[in-house]
Amino acid sequence: MSKVAIEKMIKQLAELDSAGMYLDDFLLTWDRSDDQISAVFKMAEILMQMRKSNISPRIFDSGLAVSLFRDNSTRTRFSFSSAANLLGLEVQDLDEGKSQIAHGETVRETANMVSFMADVIGIRDDMYIGKGNAYMREVAASVAQGYAAGILEQRPTLVNLQCDIDHPTQSMADAMHLIRHFGGLENLRGKKIAMSWAYSPSYGKPLSVPQGIIGLMTRFGMDVVLAHPEGYEVMPEVEAVAHKNAAAAGGSFRKTGSMAEAFEGADIVYPKSWAPFNAMEKRTVLYGDNDMAGIKELEQELLAQNANFKDWECTEELMAQTRDKSALYMHCLPADITGVSCKQGEVAASVFERYRDPLYFEASYKPYVIAAMIFLAKVEDPAGKLGQILQRNRQRML
Amino acid sequence: MSKVAIEKMIKQLAELDSAGMYLDDFLLTWDRSDDQISAVFKMAEILMQMRKSNISPRIFDSGLAVSLFRDNSTRTRFSFSSAANLLGLEVQDLDEGKSQIAHGETVRETANMVSFMADVIGIRDDMYIGKGNAYMREVAASVAQGYAAGILEQRPTLVNLQCDIDHPTQSMADAMHLIRHFGGLENLRGKKIAMSWAYSPSYGKPLSVPQGIIGLMTRFGMDVVLAHPEGYEVMPEVEAVAHKNAAAAGGSFRKTGSMAEAFEGADIVYPKSWAPFNAMEKRTVLYGDNDMAGIKELEQELLAQNANFKDWECTEELMAQTRDKSALYMHCLPADITGVSCKQGEVAASVFERYRDPLYFEASYKPYVIAAMIFLAKVEDPAGKLGQILQRNRQRML
Amino acid sequence: MSKVAIEKMIKQLAELDSAGMYLDDFLLTWDRSDDQISAVFKMAEILMQMRKSNISPRIFDSGLAVSLFRDNSTRTRFSFSSAANLLGLEVQDLDEGKSQIAHGETVRETANMVSFMADVIGIRDDMYIGKGNAYMREVAASVAQGYAAGILEQRPTLVNLQCDIDHPTQSMADAMHLIRHFGGLENLRGKKIAMSWAYSPSYGKPLSVPQGIIGLMTRFGMDVVLAHPEGYEVMPEVEAVAHKNAAAAGGSFRKTGSMAEAFEGADIVYPKSWAPFNAMEKRTVLYGDNDMAGIKELEQELLAQNANFKDWECTEELMAQTRDKSALYMHCLPADITGVSCKQGEVAASVFERYRDPLYFEASYKPYVIAAMIFLAKVEDPAGKLGQILQRNRQRML
Repeated sequence: MSKVAIEKMIKQLAELDSAGMYLDDFLLTWDRSDDQISAVFKMAEILMQMRKSNISPRIFDSGLAVSLFRDNSTRTRFSFSSAANLLGLEVQDLDEGKSQIAHGETVRETANMVSFMADVIGIRDDMYIGKGNAYMREVAASVAQGYAAGILEQRPTLVNLQCDIDHPTQSMADAMHLIRHFGGLENLRGKKIAMSWAYSPSYGKPLSVPQGIIGLMTRFGMDVVLAHPEGYEVMPEVEAVAHKNAAAAGGSFRKTGSMAEAFEGADIVYPKSWAPFNAMEKRTVLYGDNDMAGIKELEQELLAQNANFKDWECTEELMAQTRDKSALYMHCLPADITGVSCKQGEVAASVFERYRDPLYFEASYKPYVIAAMIFLAKVEDPAGKLGQILQRNRQRML
Repeated sequence: MSKVAIEKMIKQLAELDSAGMYLDDFLLTWDRSDDQISAVFKMAEILMQMRKSNISPRIFDSGLAVSLFRDNSTRTRFSFSSAANLLGLEVQDLDEGKSQIAHGETVRETANMVSFMADVIGIRDDMYIGKGNAYMREVAASVAQGYAAGILEQRPTLVNLQCDIDHPTQSMADAMHLIRHFGGLENLRGKKIAMSWAYSPSYGKPLSVPQGIIGLMTRFGMDVVLAHPEGYEVMPEVEAVAHKNAAAAGGSFRKTGSMAEAFEGADIVYPKSWAPFNAMEKRTVLYGDNDMAGIKELEQELLAQNANFKDWECTEELMAQTRDKSALYMHCLPADITGVSCKQGEVAASVFERYRDPLYFEASYKPYVIAAMIFLAKVEDPAGKLGQILQRNRQRML
Repeated sequence: MSKVAIEKMIKQLAELDSAGMYLDDFLLTWDRSDDQISAVFKMAEILMQMRKSNISPRIFDSGLAVSLFRDNSTRTRFSFSSAANLLGLEVQDLDEGKSQIAHGETVRETANMVSFMADVIGIRDDMYIGKGNAYMREVAASVAQGYAAGILEQRPTLVNLQCDIDHPTQSMADAMHLIRHFGGLENLRGKKIAMSWAYSPSYGKPLSVPQGIIGLMTRFGMDVVLAHPEGYEVMPEVEAVAHKNAAAAGGSFRKTGSMAEAFEGADIVYPKSWAPFNAMEKRTVLYGDNDMAGIKELEQELLAQNANFKDWECTEELMAQTRDKSALYMHCLPADITGVSCKQGEVAASVFERYRDPLYFEASYKPYVIAAMIFLAKVEDPAGKLGQILQRNRQRML
């Protein structure tokens, strides 16, 4: 992309009011104003175009990016590393297994101890309902306090890499995929997106993806349909957010118990397995009580319940019901593909295969979304700084 | 801080004779001259002020910082990472679990194999009496030999991140805290510091912290009192160092079996649990013999012995006996806090809470102390180089 | 080294046709032309001389180097880190234990997901015959496809850090050692090298080292002798490569069942244990079938077979039979040293000790060989770029 085109985008960014992101965290998309959300997309696009044009947007000569993964991760781990590295930060993983974190050591203490030279902290903590986001807020408050007291020289920004409520780096990358696919954020208005439950042999996947999708896509004037079998409700608070967003944006949010109904005429489909919210709440209590027998029993129940809905699969037949028989198929990956990764899964192999390249593109935006979140939180005048970077003209690769 | 103020500190550094640190290691504080110790404090302060003024003191365009942690670590791991990163080095962890280190492979071989592009090696090895420091010396001698033979292009500096004898990055950070608290190294003269044993449900903590404190603080003309119950003696060699230092510096070093006596009129208190030296020696032998039954028996003995001294706690009553009832409370963290991290521990919750911010400041100096040790070991003319950095005026963050 | 001398080497590099390496991978030395092999040596030497002259050859301002070690590693891990860091890339380890790689997730998917900002991927996968190299080719094809589709902004280069067939970074570093020892690639012509099996208590070492050596050294007009007891054959395909190379280069390749015969008049000896190829094939099948009893039985067989050849040791007596009683002893390390790392092993302690420094030098070239492979794959005009680096004159250390 020409420098002139990048300059034009920087001007567009300058028109958005993202001041509230400076020295703040990114925890839930619905904490952020429309302008802030748009600023993340614009910034991500600019950083991507700079890198593609071999312009290094590095803003740090040194500094740490602390990562804490309380669940296994490949995609998000590499996305976070890539984003931090692009801006000049070195990832230092807080591996709780190798750490000397005392029993009863306060979150406040650990958070400050790892942050003396940390510019960003990325956390994935998605396993227990009521826990992950609360933990992130405690870490964020702790480092904010440390910064205010002068203990920390800089305010580390907390980026939510997936919690029990939202998965903002995923939903924002998904939205960026839609923006690029449909040629602009304004073109999402009126598009129908089906966020649908789908069957998977694994019954306990996080709710943060469907919640993130209905909490974000309702902001763009889209017609958002959430489909799931009875018993697979998501958190009511997030449904309330979706309703409120839809009303404000002039789109709609509704629920259905039929995958077919959701797919009917849809422009976009996002079929994905998740665990029932109520069961996740029960599990959290059982884990808290260390009740292993109870957990085992619950798992058996959930597997039995789950097995009732094997027909919730994204098949060619269902795809044929979508707009022009060619809705955009989305997934956060890895998908459970029937006959490939499991006997019966979320999606038919032929559907998945047809969308392989678009799915990889969808995933490719996450590093830029994370980098954009960091940039907007760390830099007071982001558009001005981008202009400076453009002028500096430092090469990403000599 | 203004550049003029930083330049003034650089001039003060130039007056100290730190030549003996160049291409050498940092293993024990008492290996180093008074000027060298002062140079570390001055350098750490300069690096801190530079970073606070957004001046990047980076001196490496590439290079590795090898870390080897033979014990879990959070604080020291992140301090080492931060220091290396600030100077431009990338940490590469030598994880002995993931390494192909053959049975019987010599230390000399491993040390050379990881050091072809290593500028610094940081090691924590604090578990067995007679082992950790000896291991570090073997590594240091190995890479010195490799450098002399031309195998290694640069001489990697070994930084002791805690051994069985000393914990120099901790004690130096602690001293830097005192220097800043009392307004200068010269103001430590005559101050009374109580390094006291305290009860903890965990009975086997390293001796390197109390040893490091009495070995260092006696150099500054302070009145150093070491308090512990019978049976909790530290290494006699280190007591001898403390006596020698005190005599030379015009301060004092004495021991007492009473926490209250130690606290009486103290300016600074450092109450902390440690294991009895004799027991640690026994344990080292038992581990050497792989005598698991013997180890279990010893642990039971130690726990029973330990339980006799539950009243060795830093309470409000004891704090009230200190100078102006407001001695500076210190700890290397994490502390065992009564009613918080354990039923009964080293310190009352109200005392700990009152000193939380100062404790975090105390910890915050460690990255700079480590960076200062590296800088002084790698750069032949440190003051000149700092002047060059100041002139270069590269921003830490754009 | 003077800039003039480095410039001279750059001119020599410019005369070699290495164009075929650009945007390609390094999987087997025999995939590459003579000019390409020479270009790696020349590039490695230039990078080494630059670093020794404190000139930073860094070409990346940001970018990831993905590493995947399916076997423990110290030497190769640190070599890869050093090489990546020297060029400006940050290592991000793909730890399959900590990854969310779904059952049945395709290699194509994982490869793309970790490569959005990856410039190089280094893989060690040497355990199963028929697997490692095939896996690497699948990864390489996957990222090539992702790059062609525009999903990946850059083409990550795959560097084989050891597979079931070849260990090119080892054999190339070994060859660089010979080039420096004998004063030039041209001086290797006519030299006799004995690649000999040797006894080790561990019976299952990879075949990639002997295979790499006979596949590479036969290109230089050397007389290559492969010695091993009956039953310790290497892969026939690689023997065929060695024969073809020798015929083309005017040297020779032959096999013998006697270590003494191989050592007779040798200029270079490389005594090393490896597993029998047939047994490794069987083991691969047994692992595929998850036949643990079968594996145990096979191991017992192999140990018994192995024990018949304890006299295959590189002793002083054997060394006395080499040219001028002073052949260059080589090993990829760690070696099994009789009386040091095991009761009876590959080499006598006195022989090993005499060659310790040369062995460490041999190992020291690996980081530069890897950096050279990356540089030649990522840069279209390597000689031109090196000239630019020389002119830029950026210091490795300020």
